[in-house]
Amino acid sequence: MAPLLKDELDIVIPTIRNLEFLEMWRPFFEPYHLIIVQDGDPTRTVMVPEGFDYELYNRNDINRILGPKASCISFKDSACRCFGYMVSKKKYVYTIDDDCFVAKDPTGKDIDALAKHIQNLLCPSTPLFFNTLYDPYQEGADFVRGYPFSLREGVPTAVSHGLWLNIPDYDAPTQLVKPRERNGRYVDAVMTIPKGSLFPMCGMNLAFDRELIGPAMYFGLMGDGQPIGRYDDMWAGWCVKVICDHLGLGVKTGLPYIWHSKASNPFVNLKKEYKGIFWQEDIIPFFQAAKLTKECDTVQKCYISLSQQVREKLGKIDPYFTKLADAMVTWIEAWDMLNSKDSKDSKEADANGKLKGK
Amino acid sequence: MAPLLKDELDIVIPTIRNLEFLEMWRPFFEPYHLIIVQDGDPTRTVMVPEGFDYELYNRNDINRILGPKASCISFKDSACRCFGYMVSKKKYVYTIDDDCFVAKDPTGKDIDALAKHIQNLLCPSTPLFFNTLYDPYQEGADFVRGYPFSLREGVPTAVSHGLWLNIPDYDAPTQLVKPRERNGRYVDAVMTIPKGSLFPMCGMNLAFDRELIGPAMYFGLMGDGQPIGRYDDMWAGWCVKVICDHLGLGVKTGLPYIWHSKASNPFVNLKKEYKGIFWQEDIIPFFQAAKLTKECDTVQKCYISLSQQVREKLGKIDPYFTKLADAMVTWIEAWDMLNSKDSKDSKEADANGKLKGK
Repeated sequence: MAPLLKDELDIVIPTIRNLEFLEMWRPFFEPYHLIIVQDGDPTRTVMVPEGFDYELYNRNDINRILGPKASCISFKDSACRCFGYMVSKKKYVYTIDDDCFVAKDPTGKDIDALAKHIQNLLCPSTPLFFNTLYDPYQEGADFVRGYPFSLREGVPTAVSHGLWLNIPDYDAPTQLVKPRERNGRYVDAVMTIPKGSLFPMCGMNLAFDRELIGPAMYFGLMGDGQPIGRYDDMWAGWCVKVICDHLGLGVKTGLPYIWHSKASNPFVNLKKEYKGIFWQEDIIPFFQAAKLTKECDTVQKCYISLSQQVREKLGKIDPYFTKLADAMVTWIEAWDMLNSKDSKDSKEADANGKLKGK
Repeated sequence: MAPLLKDELDIVIPTIRNLEFLEMWRPFFEPYHLIIVQDGDPTRTVMVPEGFDYELYNRNDINRILGPKASCISFKDSACRCFGYMVSKKKYVYTIDDDCFVAKDPTGKDIDALAKHIQNLLCPSTPLFFNTLYDPYQEGADFVRGYPFSLREGVPTAVSHGLWLNIPDYDAPTQLVKPRERNGRYVDAVMTIPKGSLFPMCGMNLAFDRELIGPAMYFGLMGDGQPIGRYDDMWAGWCVKVICDHLGLGVKTGLPYIWHSKASNPFVNLKKEYKGIFWQEDIIPFFQAAKLTKECDTVQKCYISLSQQVREKLGKIDPYFTKLADAMVTWIEAWDMLNSKDSKDSKEADANGKLKGK
């Protein structure tokens, strides 16, 4: 059997290291095309194991392809990965961190995380009413008594958020308080996050439908020259969830697990997160209250409307949010530049990847 | 160690059979007080295994204790169980069906469902923001990165909704279509149902805090003389969730599992559910849109306000809902009659149980 969606999915990997971690993923990833976004020093050579089909972009490539619009892509932060979402020409994207390995299910079998994400994305979501037996479309499950029949078709799934065994995705304070905590609990479930409920989206093990939600998957301004880090995926998740709720799209979380191998340094993390710990107390109520009008009928329009609200409401908290609102607009311009049908830039991006493997 | 909450929890069991199923639960239930609500023919004697501490109420008892207000308690339907919630004098209630047995966890160990419910109830809930690692208060888990610190205290838990292995809680159409489907998936998680999201609450394996939410746990008018059945727990769940959301209380679902031994007859069920299948299409949007004002600062006031909205909005669908709205008011009157401090009736109810065991 051919690998599912072989020609419709790109795997996006941000890295500052060599990519030996791909060896462990070879049986699962080798049929797919990889988009590697090299962070940090562009003169450094990233080693990619033999046999993988990939294109690689470093900072010079990003600057050349986007020109002045490259300012919206973060530097020295894994937030740079969203450039990969933008240059992909596929319907689906899976993104994974280079310190994530293949996890085992409780029977000891290797988990094909990508296959499970694809299954999640190809199955509808049920954000309008909670199903107590979790994913009703799964083999051996269904909608329970009392679930309205009119809602059983579900809605298209835009996002599949996978979890992590071993090192959990904790913030710096929790890492500091519980340095030895490991996640060993394998929860055998996928569920839809209900409409109206925000969640902390982690970018470590994440798949999405670019056509449905791609332009909202902006990982913000983080890292080099910015007052904050480690909120890139969170920011994207809050924007994505508000827009999915508005457009009637689903967000799933749960399976599949990957094995997260090493905890990042909690002291470094605290420095990066410091302002975010305060800011998120305002950001969450902001997103909970954000309104999108009927006129916002595309992801781009929704996103531009959110950027205006960010400027207006969060701009008061710190000038950073005004910069971020600008960058959100730039991101959409850059996205449309590379993704408009038969655009010149879009074709150039294809030709401009610094390195192509295989 | 003494059993948790031994003197603060009643187990409510509705039955038309003998209660041999208690034998299997003996190690877990024997320390607790049982309230048995006998449905159907009151002259029939329900056999209760030796050694259990119980009081039993049949229809004659209910009529004597509540007088004309007994009209709000259903007959020939497990909805009669809510009478047990009303006469309980304890802070917590656990209710279970008499065809539910002890389930085993994946290691083969008997699950003490009651102990897990108690743990769920004594731990806070997190309805305001989704935690991707499920219950953050559990051993080995916590709040993940991006979870606002101001929300980590959680809110008091009012309801713990447990699940079922073997026979899943399906409606008649699903039973008819999938007669052989069994639930074998043990999902090792407890989660809070987010604020604003309704769910199908099943009464088979359910615990709640009477003081926090008791007066909303009305199982409606079902069975004998009513146009509908098998929506008793659903109705309670919708009311409870709307009120919990308004009062800042939590509802959890997931663990513990019980073993549900036998599927009810799908043809009989279809007859009972028939009108409900249509009605729930209007009932769900009704509850999703229901509004409670600031003045509704007790469960009783919330419930009376809901009854008015039911009369006004759902009364148009069928005269049944006008009757139900009346019964909702009667229920609250009866609740307050039996539960007001030092009320005469409340003391009488204590003395009037037809049978007391042990």
